[in-house]
Amino acid sequence: MTDQTQQFASDNYSGICPEAWAAMAEANQGHQRAYGDDQWTARASDHFRQLFETDCEVFFAFNGTAANSLALASLCQSYHSVICSETAHVETDECGAPEFFSNGSKLLTARTESGKLTPDSIREIALKRQDIHYPKPRVVTLTQASEVGTVYSPEEVRAISQTCKELNLNLHMDGARFSNACASLGCSPAELTWKAGVDVLCFGGTKNGMAVGEAILFFNKALAEDFDYRCKQAGQLASKMRYLSAPWVGLLQDDAWLRYAGHANQCARLLAELVADVPGVSLMFPVQANGVFLQLSEPALERLRDWGWRFYTFIGAGGARFMCSWDTEEARVRELAADIRRAMA
Amino acid sequence: MTDQTQQFASDNYSGICPEAWAAMAEANQGHQRAYGDDQWTARASDHFRQLFETDCEVFFAFNGTAANSLALASLCQSYHSVICSETAHVETDECGAPEFFSNGSKLLTARTESGKLTPDSIREIALKRQDIHYPKPRVVTLTQASEVGTVYSPEEVRAISQTCKELNLNLHMDGARFSNACASLGCSPAELTWKAGVDVLCFGGTKNGMAVGEAILFFNKALAEDFDYRCKQAGQLASKMRYLSAPWVGLLQDDAWLRYAGHANQCARLLAELVADVPGVSLMFPVQANGVFLQLSEPALERLRDWGWRFYTFIGAGGARFMCSWDTEEARVRELAADIRRAMA
Amino acid sequence: MTDQTQQFASDNYSGICPEAWAAMAEANQGHQRAYGDDQWTARASDHFRQLFETDCEVFFAFNGTAANSLALASLCQSYHSVICSETAHVETDECGAPEFFSNGSKLLTARTESGKLTPDSIREIALKRQDIHYPKPRVVTLTQASEVGTVYSPEEVRAISQTCKELNLNLHMDGARFSNACASLGCSPAELTWKAGVDVLCFGGTKNGMAVGEAILFFNKALAEDFDYRCKQAGQLASKMRYLSAPWVGLLQDDAWLRYAGHANQCARLLAELVADVPGVSLMFPVQANGVFLQLSEPALERLRDWGWRFYTFIGAGGARFMCSWDTEEARVRELAADIRRAMA
Amino acid sequence: MTDQTQQFASDNYSGICPEAWAAMAEANQGHQRAYGDDQWTARASDHFRQLFETDCEVFFAFNGTAANSLALASLCQSYHSVICSETAHVETDECGAPEFFSNGSKLLTARTESGKLTPDSIREIALKRQDIHYPKPRVVTLTQASEVGTVYSPEEVRAISQTCKELNLNLHMDGARFSNACASLGCSPAELTWKAGVDVLCFGGTKNGMAVGEAILFFNKALAEDFDYRCKQAGQLASKMRYLSAPWVGLLQDDAWLRYAGHANQCARLLAELVADVPGVSLMFPVQANGVFLQLSEPALERLRDWGWRFYTFIGAGGARFMCSWDTEEARVRELAADIRRAMA
Repeated sequence: MTDQTQQFASDNYSGICPEAWAAMAEANQGHQRAYGDDQWTARASDHFRQLFETDCEVFFAFNGTAANSLALASLCQSYHSVICSETAHVETDECGAPEFFSNGSKLLTARTESGKLTPDSIREIALKRQDIHYPKPRVVTLTQASEVGTVYSPEEVRAISQTCKELNLNLHMDGARFSNACASLGCSPAELTWKAGVDVLCFGGTKNGMAVGEAILFFNKALAEDFDYRCKQAGQLASKMRYLSAPWVGLLQDDAWLRYAGHANQCARLLAELVADVPGVSLMFPVQANGVFLQLSEPALERLRDWGWRFYTFIGAGGARFMCSWDTEEARVRELAADIRRAMA
Repeated sequence: MTDQTQQFASDNYSGICPEAWAAMAEANQGHQRAYGDDQWTARASDHFRQLFETDCEVFFAFNGTAANSLALASLCQSYHSVICSETAHVETDECGAPEFFSNGSKLLTARTESGKLTPDSIREIALKRQDIHYPKPRVVTLTQASEVGTVYSPEEVRAISQTCKELNLNLHMDGARFSNACASLGCSPAELTWKAGVDVLCFGGTKNGMAVGEAILFFNKALAEDFDYRCKQAGQLASKMRYLSAPWVGLLQDDAWLRYAGHANQCARLLAELVADVPGVSLMFPVQANGVFLQLSEPALERLRDWGWRFYTFIGAGGARFMCSWDTEEARVRELAADIRRAMA
Repeated sequence: MTDQTQQFASDNYSGICPEAWAAMAEANQGHQRAYGDDQWTARASDHFRQLFETDCEVFFAFNGTAANSLALASLCQSYHSVICSETAHVETDECGAPEFFSNGSKLLTARTESGKLTPDSIREIALKRQDIHYPKPRVVTLTQASEVGTVYSPEEVRAISQTCKELNLNLHMDGARFSNACASLGCSPAELTWKAGVDVLCFGGTKNGMAVGEAILFFNKALAEDFDYRCKQAGQLASKMRYLSAPWVGLLQDDAWLRYAGHANQCARLLAELVADVPGVSLMFPVQANGVFLQLSEPALERLRDWGWRFYTFIGAGGARFMCSWDTEEARVRELAADIRRAMA
Repeated sequence: MTDQTQQFASDNYSGICPEAWAAMAEANQGHQRAYGDDQWTARASDHFRQLFETDCEVFFAFNGTAANSLALASLCQSYHSVICSETAHVETDECGAPEFFSNGSKLLTARTESGKLTPDSIREIALKRQDIHYPKPRVVTLTQASEVGTVYSPEEVRAISQTCKELNLNLHMDGARFSNACASLGCSPAELTWKAGVDVLCFGGTKNGMAVGEAILFFNKALAEDFDYRCKQAGQLASKMRYLSAPWVGLLQDDAWLRYAGHANQCARLLAELVADVPGVSLMFPVQANGVFLQLSEPALERLRDWGWRFYTFIGAGGARFMCSWDTEEARVRELAADIRRAMA
């Protein structure tokens, strides 16, 4: 049935974690009011406010495509533009969703260092054009952890938000793997977001052990005006909302979210360590979250595939991405590492 | 915790049925390929094709708002219009979602009889304006079962589709309660859809015992071109798709979908029968699906609310809607009926 | 060549008035900076600010469809709604343009008295639905002069704007025939707009003697933020802007705009007077601007058409619209009146 | 008043040519039916069909932003993408208009040679991604003459259209300076468009001596279905259409369009020749249309500006663009050339 070699293809190949499942099972009792007017949704929202130590506005969407696109659309108009990194998921893997939800906002890609935007790269794009014939930059979106498995420190986020303020840009954080960044940095969610100047965070649940569902947190509450209507109109208001919110209760209470993220990160570091001395293997990016990007020879990649391993190779010549998830088994990591060594031999 | 008196407010107040839950539990094993490239999604699609006795194109969306809006958008352009009934959910309760997904298609409301469109009412609207200053009608959408608990017979659907062909209109069916219509009419799904000329059906799962998820079935396969891209861009492609598709497998195999719909319909009929002789109570629409619309006195409505019953009263002066669902308990139906009798006394 | 009997079909059948033409000819000298950065555009904007006695923001668009739709889009988001009269041009004759430019804002039609919205009819629609499943009202648009040739007095506009303030609605005025309203009421443009609480006015030039071009005036300047980008993105920024702005200079200096509007109104009143005593003819609406709406018998309408007269009959059984324009000739009015009398005989 | 040194900043700084003006004056007689139902629009359309030797569908829009964006929107859906050159006007200078009109279609930029797309560069982009997470390529747009003053030969267009057919892409031509390309190549309009496989051409009038107005020609008539509704909804249907169409009659009859384009091209070639031997000056692109792109030293650019010359420098370090138009005076070209020589001395 399930092919265990698939474990490193993507963190969204994983299933629902026990805590989320148990909460769903508990929520699956009798009738509940629809559209978020239920106790589970209230509880999940409260959990978020406690976790982030602030009275933020909390919304739930079905997936990351929608969560990020809706959030970006709420931060700008169609004739504005969004600055993102060249590798940003919103640019490379959302089939034009941000442009669709915003009715045309253009994404402007900026240079990155280790997959991360910098104040300089943002400034460069923001100031390149200031005439009416080009969409006016209004938003910066950064991905935490980044698409190449690196993380922004609170200081880096703060420096970026400072630049945003100077340039009149709103700051959005795509947190599909926000939990991995928190676990990696040992920072509080608050330190990594609103305390560092983030206006809106999309906190990913799917890759963290849920079936569906992302949370959208507005720290800048003025920007959340009528956001509930926006979600509804865009097909992102669940009628049986409890099934999106209850899993969050399961994940957030007792810190399962953080433990699982820490586990995934640890597996990634383990993999990197185990292959560090393999001749011909080189690490493409520092391993700061749950992804490991390795430069391998083409024949080695071929052999690994033949042996059944699944991974992505969209990063460039010879680059392979191995993602660890909440349920990655250490034994598999060791097997994979051994096979990489064998494949490169 | 759960308030049993809520059982008649809406069929989306209900939970997940055992068959759907069991399938989700079974699907929650190990890793699976994402974005619908998994075995559960293949199985669910095959179940639909068998059930409808045709090689239709099958897609899954998170909710009915999106399923119907995406389907409508695929049937027309922004400068076209969609003919619907005055009470159509897409017109009255989707916060402008059809207009949003289509980038501006106008909904034109037509007269109904017992909540149903007729060839005449469609023709009237379709032919009213034929100049460039008014959006050109391109789609008819009908709701099966209708928003007032009535159903279209296969003959009625066929008559409408004939009119559509004459007028060059595509025919969409909003089947949020399609299962209730099937159970009520004793027709096969094929008879009620493509055999009667329907191009696209949105088959509702949420009200039928699922957590989230609706299926979109294109019988006219030419209209489905690149519909997968449309879903992805609009934030309706689940990464862990198996959690949307597995419940369908649970519902469709062994006909749970039909049994539950039949049960809900039966509860509705029972309620109607039990209050038929209550002085002052009148039935607003024939009970053909799972909803009962009763004309009650204002004081009676007040009393029922005081006693804890939940129901909607958006239908007009004195009208109350009582919805039965897959898990409505007969005992509750009898309690409610008794309370209605008592309230009207 | 030109069929003089067409003179009453529509005021946009008319040509360019001498003052507008002369200004265009003068502007057609040598090279000028593009995109509104020229002296003519500056002069036209200044003329508007003087005429309206306030420092409003002034923009130019190619036509009324775009001017009104862009203005409305700037006053709300896609999940908001716009309250308009049942006969509003934006509802009945723009092929869904407001929905397109706003990416889905729904138009909600309110009852009218003599073609005019009232505080009560606005309130009725604004308060009908207050749940998330229906687009939230954010704008009222009224047409001055109305589509049936009536005008709002300053007091009526003020009462409406008061209601708007209470309900948190922005107020837009479609002034395709604003000049006719000013001439009819003898009010200053300021009295009829910002002094009465209007946020944005679309001032029609086309029907007032220009080739193309409407002016959009934001009295509430906060609402005009980045409106220039909006126009550009929506294909409404003319490169050779001087040809849109110079005609306004011609119209506004020496009050040609008002004289022409007064002339058109006078022709309409004359027509109404001349047929007032014709048996069987009745006036459908008071003649307060440049349109005359007459109830005539079907055979009479047929005869008039046979004799070559052009007019619209979209108003209902037997209703015919006769529009007068800046260049309508009194002799033609008298001929038409005589033919109406003859046709009804 | 008019600054003659502005003559080289942009070809849209120029005015209306005598032939277009005369036609407008002639059209400005009496009343005419609105919205394109007039004799001038019929005549202009017929002129286009004769000129292109085919029964194409002809539409008129106010400007190039709209003409190109509407044409592109008619060739793809929001989840599709448009392949264009890195320097394409639709990408760099339309403020996101193509994304707005299409509701989100992404522009994908391809490498160019001398500012021109090639079959290889198109193929590279079209085949880079073929998964659902990236918008599917459906259109190629090429600019004839290109933004850097080069032209595609009929063979080059044919090679591209052949590639488009293989890859199932529609082919659009942005012909803001199509007349310049025709004059330069000595080809018939038919040879450069439908005979070479172009589906839709936007033929620019504004830069060719008109006030406003571009023509959209569908050679592939199936793609033009309901395009009139599209124009109307998008605010691009002129009520007094004759003022957009009559100038075309003036330009097209007696080949004024071609003479003027040839004149502008000749001025550009003259300028290039006159500075060819100036030390330190180099030509950045071959001069094949009406633009001259010169590499000049920064101090020289400064001096030219001090002397009052206007030109754009968006092309990169030291690059300056000098555009010639239908009314450029040879004497000015010689003055400019002399000043360039003096500035570089």
